[in-house]
Amino acid sequence: MNPSENQTAIFPKGEKGPAEYFTGTVWIKVLVPHSNTFNCQIAHVQFEPKARTNWHTHPGGQILIVTNGKGYYQEKDKPVQIISNGDVVTISPDVLHWHGAIPDSEFSHIAVNTNSQKGIAVWLDKVTDEEYSSLKSG
Amino acid sequence: MNPSENQTAIFPKGEKGPAEYFTGTVWIKVLVPHSNTFNCQIAHVQFEPKARTNWHTHPGGQILIVTNGKGYYQEKDKPVQIISNGDVVTISPDVLHWHGAIPDSEFSHIAVNTNSQKGIAVWLDKVTDEEYSSLKSG
Repeated sequence: MNPSENQTAIFPKGEKGPAEYFTGTVWIKVLVPHSNTFNCQIAHVQFEPKARTNWHTHPGGQILIVTNGKGYYQEKDKPVQIISNGDVVTISPDVLHWHGAIPDSEFSHIAVNTNSQKGIAVWLDKVTDEEYSSLKSG
Repeated sequence: MNPSENQTAIFPKGEKGPAEYFTGTVWIKVLVPHSNTFNCQIAHVQFEPKARTNWHTHPGGQILIVTNGKGYYQEKDKPVQIISNGDVVTISPDVLHWHGAIPDSEFSHIAVNTNSQKGIAVWLDKVTDEEYSSLKSG
C-alpha cells in the first residue's frame, strides 16, 4: 500500500508543502484561514514517512494535536521526542522547533496557529539528516 | 457494544458534562486550558446518541472540528444541519447555537474556543425534544 493512500484519513490531503520549507512529501489542508474574528488559523498536515518541516518559529504560538501515526518533535537544544495519536504539543511564540514523521510511519496533526494576527510561521534552515536521525528508536 | 466504549477514540473521555449544560451523556476532555500565551482553549467532546448541549454562545467564538460520527448543529432561527467526520464549523462570537449527536450515532468533535481571554461559554436554555427533533432525517 502506498502510504499516501490512507483511506481512513478524515480530512482531504490539500496542497503539497513547498520544498523550501519541508523535506520529503507533506500535504497541507487549511481548515480555517486566518480571520480577525477568530485570531487563529487551523490546518491539517500529513507527513509521509521521513518527511519533516524546516526549523521554524510561530510569532503567535502553535498547538499541535496528533491525529494519526507517529512523529518527531524537537525544540532547539532539547532532545527529539516521539509523539503519537492523541498527543498535544503547545509551542510558545518564537520557540525554534521542527516536527515530522518517524522513518517508518506516516504522521498527521492538526496545527492550531494561535494569535495568527501576528503571523503564521517564520521559516529557517532545513533539518539535516544528522539532526533528523539524532534519536535512534522509534 | 456500548457506544461509550469506543476503542478507536484517540483522546481519553475526560469528565462528564454537567447536567445543567447538557442533555444526555457527554464527555469533555480539556486538551489545552486557557492561557494568555495562546488565547484559546481546546477540548475534545464526545456525545452519546441523542446527547446535546444547551443553547449557548461563546464570547470569543468557537471552531468545531468533527472527529467521529454524526451530529446536529443549529444556530437560532436557522434549520438544523447534519455534520460529520472531517467537517469544520466556525461559530462567530455571541451567536446562539447548540450541537449534539444524532439519535442513532455517537458524535465527537474538537472544540477550539478562540479568544478565550473573553470567556469560554455562556449557557442558556435546554434544547427541547421538539427542537432536537426538528430535522427528521439523519
